[in-house]
Amino acid sequence: MTDTPLTIGVLGYRFMGKAHANALARLPMFFPDAPAVERHTIVGRDEEALADAADRFGFTHTTTDWADAIDAVDVFYNLGPNHVHAEPSIAALEAGVPVLCEKPLAPTLNEAGAMRDAAAAADVPACCAFNYRFVPAIRHARTLIADGELGEIRQVRGRYLQDWLVDPEAPWAWRMDADLAGSGALGDLGAHTIDLADFLVGDAVGGIERVSGHLETFVDERPVLDDDGEVEGYRDVTVDDAYTAQVAYESGAMGCFEASRFATGHKNDHTIEVHGSEGSLRFSLERLNELEVLRAGNRGYETVLITDASDPYVDRWWPPGHVIGWEHTFVHENYEFLRSVSTGNVPDVLSPFENGYEVQCVLDAIKRSDERGKWIAP
Amino acid sequence: MTDTPLTIGVLGYRFMGKAHANALARLPMFFPDAPAVERHTIVGRDEEALADAADRFGFTHTTTDWADAIDAVDVFYNLGPNHVHAEPSIAALEAGVPVLCEKPLAPTLNEAGAMRDAAAAADVPACCAFNYRFVPAIRHARTLIADGELGEIRQVRGRYLQDWLVDPEAPWAWRMDADLAGSGALGDLGAHTIDLADFLVGDAVGGIERVSGHLETFVDERPVLDDDGEVEGYRDVTVDDAYTAQVAYESGAMGCFEASRFATGHKNDHTIEVHGSEGSLRFSLERLNELEVLRAGNRGYETVLITDASDPYVDRWWPPGHVIGWEHTFVHENYEFLRSVSTGNVPDVLSPFENGYEVQCVLDAIKRSDERGKWIAP
Amino acid sequence: MTDTPLTIGVLGYRFMGKAHANALARLPMFFPDAPAVERHTIVGRDEEALADAADRFGFTHTTTDWADAIDAVDVFYNLGPNHVHAEPSIAALEAGVPVLCEKPLAPTLNEAGAMRDAAAAADVPACCAFNYRFVPAIRHARTLIADGELGEIRQVRGRYLQDWLVDPEAPWAWRMDADLAGSGALGDLGAHTIDLADFLVGDAVGGIERVSGHLETFVDERPVLDDDGEVEGYRDVTVDDAYTAQVAYESGAMGCFEASRFATGHKNDHTIEVHGSEGSLRFSLERLNELEVLRAGNRGYETVLITDASDPYVDRWWPPGHVIGWEHTFVHENYEFLRSVSTGNVPDVLSPFENGYEVQCVLDAIKRSDERGKWIAP
Amino acid sequence: MTDTPLTIGVLGYRFMGKAHANALARLPMFFPDAPAVERHTIVGRDEEALADAADRFGFTHTTTDWADAIDAVDVFYNLGPNHVHAEPSIAALEAGVPVLCEKPLAPTLNEAGAMRDAAAAADVPACCAFNYRFVPAIRHARTLIADGELGEIRQVRGRYLQDWLVDPEAPWAWRMDADLAGSGALGDLGAHTIDLADFLVGDAVGGIERVSGHLETFVDERPVLDDDGEVEGYRDVTVDDAYTAQVAYESGAMGCFEASRFATGHKNDHTIEVHGSEGSLRFSLERLNELEVLRAGNRGYETVLITDASDPYVDRWWPPGHVIGWEHTFVHENYEFLRSVSTGNVPDVLSPFENGYEVQCVLDAIKRSDERGKWIAP
Repeated sequence: MTDTPLTIGVLGYRFMGKAHANALARLPMFFPDAPAVERHTIVGRDEEALADAADRFGFTHTTTDWADAIDAVDVFYNLGPNHVHAEPSIAALEAGVPVLCEKPLAPTLNEAGAMRDAAAAADVPACCAFNYRFVPAIRHARTLIADGELGEIRQVRGRYLQDWLVDPEAPWAWRMDADLAGSGALGDLGAHTIDLADFLVGDAVGGIERVSGHLETFVDERPVLDDDGEVEGYRDVTVDDAYTAQVAYESGAMGCFEASRFATGHKNDHTIEVHGSEGSLRFSLERLNELEVLRAGNRGYETVLITDASDPYVDRWWPPGHVIGWEHTFVHENYEFLRSVSTGNVPDVLSPFENGYEVQCVLDAIKRSDERGKWIAP
Repeated sequence: MTDTPLTIGVLGYRFMGKAHANALARLPMFFPDAPAVERHTIVGRDEEALADAADRFGFTHTTTDWADAIDAVDVFYNLGPNHVHAEPSIAALEAGVPVLCEKPLAPTLNEAGAMRDAAAAADVPACCAFNYRFVPAIRHARTLIADGELGEIRQVRGRYLQDWLVDPEAPWAWRMDADLAGSGALGDLGAHTIDLADFLVGDAVGGIERVSGHLETFVDERPVLDDDGEVEGYRDVTVDDAYTAQVAYESGAMGCFEASRFATGHKNDHTIEVHGSEGSLRFSLERLNELEVLRAGNRGYETVLITDASDPYVDRWWPPGHVIGWEHTFVHENYEFLRSVSTGNVPDVLSPFENGYEVQCVLDAIKRSDERGKWIAP
Repeated sequence: MTDTPLTIGVLGYRFMGKAHANALARLPMFFPDAPAVERHTIVGRDEEALADAADRFGFTHTTTDWADAIDAVDVFYNLGPNHVHAEPSIAALEAGVPVLCEKPLAPTLNEAGAMRDAAAAADVPACCAFNYRFVPAIRHARTLIADGELGEIRQVRGRYLQDWLVDPEAPWAWRMDADLAGSGALGDLGAHTIDLADFLVGDAVGGIERVSGHLETFVDERPVLDDDGEVEGYRDVTVDDAYTAQVAYESGAMGCFEASRFATGHKNDHTIEVHGSEGSLRFSLERLNELEVLRAGNRGYETVLITDASDPYVDRWWPPGHVIGWEHTFVHENYEFLRSVSTGNVPDVLSPFENGYEVQCVLDAIKRSDERGKWIAP
Repeated sequence: MTDTPLTIGVLGYRFMGKAHANALARLPMFFPDAPAVERHTIVGRDEEALADAADRFGFTHTTTDWADAIDAVDVFYNLGPNHVHAEPSIAALEAGVPVLCEKPLAPTLNEAGAMRDAAAAADVPACCAFNYRFVPAIRHARTLIADGELGEIRQVRGRYLQDWLVDPEAPWAWRMDADLAGSGALGDLGAHTIDLADFLVGDAVGGIERVSGHLETFVDERPVLDDDGEVEGYRDVTVDDAYTAQVAYESGAMGCFEASRFATGHKNDHTIEVHGSEGSLRFSLERLNELEVLRAGNRGYETVLITDASDPYVDRWWPPGHVIGWEHTFVHENYEFLRSVSTGNVPDVLSPFENGYEVQCVLDAIKRSDERGKWIAP
């Protein structure tokens, strides 16, 4: 698409760093129409770990100063913990560098608002990385709903269940701290659900009129481990372990959402269900190649493998029935984002900061509703 | 057990009348230790329909006056619409006649309270007919939870999905009228869910501390049909088509409940899910012979067919794998209730009016919470 | 339908005796158009057990001589072990008494042939009790195939898995003896599968051209228990514990069948799958209210709950989603058989002895094929 | 592991070419302990297509002469149609170049035998690319069986269902020609099943004593399309569209296998089921992250997501519940094969040509059994 590769700088080299590095590496073979990229600079605090990550992830430079990275690259990926989302992302945008920032947009609504404003003032794409929008089955589901196959949407249900904290001795981590993460299951998992529900049915049901939230912390403190893995003390858990929410949409539709890090036996079970006057659908992330659809004229759900060449993105990969994995969503996301950088057009499968901010408003309203014990408008 | 059969009088000869008449008829062959019964009197308003029902259901007498029935029989079954639950049930109890009353206990909390008081004053069993307690898989699940197999209970999820009102031209019926039914999906379906959740985890999580409710009516009026099935006018729907609720338990556990008559494609899908610190379980009424269980040491849910001779009630029926149906729950329920009449002991698988009243309190709190837009203690 | 009830005599009072007695008892309430019946005589060898069974099953007479029963009744049910199928059934038919005989028709092809001949010579219905034909989902599936919804049928797959013999110390029983039972898993379970496959696709694929069979006995002898449940010796197992079979149909379609009493974890898992040029379907007995169907225009299987009023037999029972059980197949079977006795017309949902004999031919061919190590025409 | 990368030459640049090129490209990031490789030469007949493939797949050289490639590279991958498996693979081995050859090993038993002999005479690894051995769930299943968790293995069931030929107008391709492909569904799909069954239970049940086979061709000729996609004629289909097979193992265990390209609605449904005296398991390729396991003490199958860090290969990828796809099996396979090239040790997860030949013997026996109408020893 372009002769000079786009240079990419990424802040963060753990889970999300690996997921995006892999995505970038896979584009040329499967999405040759994506802009060429160079994995350029990787940003972090620990020089040794950085050097190792750069080597594994194929980056040519490292720095401990994100400002340097922003100076050096064409595109900035913010893949760090939530509390470092705002400042570097805003700086990048002010420098005219496009930004892809992991979700949730920020730990606080204020920071998210500042990020949205920076994006509005910038002339480059700034997107929030809600990768589940890029599951072929989800895009197919969205099309079905947009085409009216489900009729008038009446009910939406979403839940995201994990169990990695069910052991009370599972160690403390930044994701359990309100200052670093903003919230717990709500922001980490609920952000995905709120975004996905909006992505699927937002156009049909209008905005969220009001929400009722419920947050609980089941285990109040957790061990902090030293470098040898020994417990060196205990630290408070200041975020939610689980949340539930009820939602009233402008159209009169109802929503019911939930996430947990204590759902014993569930590893990464993100489920979305939609009921309309003509049909219903169900999706579950642990079986992400499948979509269950009930359309007018059907009596039961049809379990469809979304792996045909005509399904979104699938022609780039393998023949029907040769299933893809979780990581492929990042390849699709990077493809769409990098193309938007290249063309200047942000397709609606991407989530601009504006949209990431709206998700944050809902998360914030859920939290405030819990604190006040009443329904809140986001 | 006794030489003289207990004479049974039933008010109502439609769906529930058929279900209980069938149950009574099946007891001798499968539960020979149940008290002998005589299907004696059937009560209703339409003499012709009554005569026909008596003939089909094997009753020897009919009357249009429930007071006559109460005079004539040993046991009174109140299977009529919700608005006729209170008065005849109370009259029976005052006459010393044991009562089995269909759920929900009453359309209003006041009436439910009066029924509870009448039961407390009476010296005979008075039970609310929550038949799903008598599913073998549910009783097995309850034992697992009571035995601590799931550890500390953290989350409960229940939903009851039907779709018989999704067509806006589906005709008006008494179940859509606030005066006759009390509430809609909430009272009809939610009563089952609230009771079942309490039956399963109530001892583990304590009482319900507070609830947040949301009720919606998607279709405001429905056609009234004349005897020829022609539309003769429209009548308002004054109850909810769907509800959702969040629940905070005394123990800190969380609940999330929902029911709908608009869930396209779902016929009678009553699902209960429980997560504890050591395990999880799932049950779905449309596959009522199965229980999905995850216990300590397991990585995934085990799909267990609850049809072994050692499972509750199963030795009375068929060999392993020879599945039973929905109606069998009524046989088990009648067995337990009639034995309690005979022995004077009400086992805790039955739901006394006291308990039915508590369910009603929760339903009422959900409704008031919806009206006030805030959390309410039941 | 008739003023004088048909008197019924049954040979056998164990599992099948209970299933049919229950079915007879349930007809008046749910199938009022069935002929009235009187549970008249029950035949067996042990007078005490007989008296007890008669009491539980609602029969008014007992006898240890089946000939007496045949003299005394209008209709004869042969529900005894396979080795007593032929003689009493033939005697009944020679006496002009209609016969319903449990499957498989007989332990040997010779006896089955004699039964078929007796039926041909008689002027009354003589049917083999393949109860799974009367599952609503199966009848619905048959209609779909007959209507061409699946196109040209290419492949049929059937398997019937149980595990009650997996323990090598499970006690010896008549079902493990070649003289008493004829064969093992093949005759007991395979008979159902062969019949059901023929019922579903026989018209579409023509007869079976040839079969290849494989029988294995995994445990050669089993303990015989005395009255106190102590092992008093060991007796040879002279039948198969499991079989597999390949089938070539006249149309060129292929079949693949299997049964086992050693399939650990499977209780009563009878599964049938059919692939045609336009669609496919799957049925599993442990979820007998469901049918999975893929029709032209669909991409995946639709999981349909066959519980609508428009589904076969369902209007007699409960509203949509209120599932029925295994025993209901016997009610439907008795309804159809008794009506055929009353009207003289045998509808094709029933399996006349002629058909039971053809099933026996296939079972016999599978066994001979195994012995000879080559394909055999039945 | 080594400073100088291994140069890789691949014959074939279509489906399998893409799958292996992708695998090679992904090794450095996820399997840094794999030998470094250089995607060196790609071999094919059409120079334009070759240049394009080299560009997309990251190869630096192309040639239309496989002999040149063998001269030029350290490792040879034979990913071409079956009829070009033998000669180049043998030439490579004779030149001391390790070979990874796609399955089935060869279209004829003779050629497979020659390949086996060449491998035996060579001092370098020569493996057949049965990629499903490298599914984490399959390796986990193998360990369970090897550890005796399922007890004595009694029954094995395998089927591989696709539907890409169900349309009689689907165009002719080399896979439908006996000379080019050897066989149809049998060799293409059945090879996988036979190998996987042997991989899982071979040690437990011993060799295959005898087989009974059944092959059918449902559509005898298919359209040949010209470059514009217009039908320019019809060509005979000379291979099977579907096969079934029965297997008797030396231990007395039974097998039942099947594949089809006409199983409407099934895209890539490779299912393996095993029953032992202590437990059972099930695997299905379309849900390749899951394994259903029933172990001693369990009543039902446990649906386990094989995505924990302790599961085979999973620690290289993503956290629990973040599922992988079909293509990952190729990464694992390439990792194991290239390490064996580097170390000289061939671990038993790989299938040496010797083993590929044995699979071929079984396929050949199935075919001959079908021709002769009797059981055959392979």
